[in-house]
Amino acid sequence: MWDFEVMSDDDVAVLRRRYDPLTDSIRELIDAALHTAAADDDVQQAKAGIDSAAAALRRNRREGSLGMTLTPDGASVPWGNLGNGLRNPLAPPLVVEYDGPTRAHIDVELGAAYEGPPGHLHGGYCALVLDHLLGEVASRGSIETMAATGTISLRYQRPTRLGRLRAEAEIERVEGRKIFIAGQLADEDGTTVTAEGLFIILRQG
Amino acid sequence: MWDFEVMSDDDVAVLRRRYDPLTDSIRELIDAALHTAAADDDVQQAKAGIDSAAAALRRNRREGSLGMTLTPDGASVPWGNLGNGLRNPLAPPLVVEYDGPTRAHIDVELGAAYEGPPGHLHGGYCALVLDHLLGEVASRGSIETMAATGTISLRYQRPTRLGRLRAEAEIERVEGRKIFIAGQLADEDGTTVTAEGLFIILRQG
Repeated sequence: MWDFEVMSDDDVAVLRRRYDPLTDSIRELIDAALHTAAADDDVQQAKAGIDSAAAALRRNRREGSLGMTLTPDGASVPWGNLGNGLRNPLAPPLVVEYDGPTRAHIDVELGAAYEGPPGHLHGGYCALVLDHLLGEVASRGSIETMAATGTISLRYQRPTRLGRLRAEAEIERVEGRKIFIAGQLADEDGTTVTAEGLFIILRQG
Repeated sequence: MWDFEVMSDDDVAVLRRRYDPLTDSIRELIDAALHTAAADDDVQQAKAGIDSAAAALRRNRREGSLGMTLTPDGASVPWGNLGNGLRNPLAPPLVVEYDGPTRAHIDVELGAAYEGPPGHLHGGYCALVLDHLLGEVASRGSIETMAATGTISLRYQRPTRLGRLRAEAEIERVEGRKIFIAGQLADEDGTTVTAEGLFIILRQG
């Protein structure tokens, strides 16, 4: 369904050395902008620095989106992904850690940039974190069994506070190309949102 | 449930004149970073400009998140919101336009920053757009009838292409404090995701 470029580990390393520090700096800038009470002069100075940075990056512009590449051993390297893209400053990033072949979790700290109701995570981002995790577990981290969301249902028990969060997911059963999977999101006081998903395997082996 | 600061229209205008251009510049920077093929020297020059901008903004730092304020006539001004915050560079922003008291839509162009599968919108961001719209319509744009997501169920018909998108939502029925509302997301080829939501009114009149 998707086409992926294959890139050697060395080439991936070159790109990561070049762009990872840039992406980190933009993440820091976003955080600084969301917490600043700077007056006009500092804001104007900051804006000038940002505009000149953007101009430097635009000297060599390519169209389209960044997508992902594969390495020769089949590992996927996400560049543009909103959840975990190495080059996407909007990605916290969400890092999926496996607790077994059918279970995984994400530990992430989400601050001011992800706000919905004051002091709380945007309800839609609760959905995004859970969709991202459920999709990854349904795909079992392999490009060979990539799964797409069929349906996902979310139940909000209470608002999720900004700060340290954990999302967990586990495959409940598999029927042919259908994977049924459940998960939940928790803040420091416990579970806030539960999810049930049906994912469809797009291609196999 | 939430406390909001009241701010005069003049004070809102002062803040918008100060920070709107900064937020726009950061959005432009994010776009430039996601489309650059710059080599090391331009990337390093950009990074230096970004780091000095962040330092200027940090000279006057306040903790917490930006939340929203109200104006004396009860209109809400979203500053930090991930969907529509005026000061949140991650917000496209999502602008809700009403087609009647119970119907509304969002027209938005979403590019590389919102990618999931290559060239397509992150499935979780489809959920975010729909949650944002359904929540706004359920609240009918008023702080007096603010609604929170109870449940939302999303059905993905096919991947959503990056580019121009439209989300629509309409209230189906109201039972006491429960608002049942449906919506869908479409790319230029038609509907991609449908949603059914149950929202709960938190306080009224």
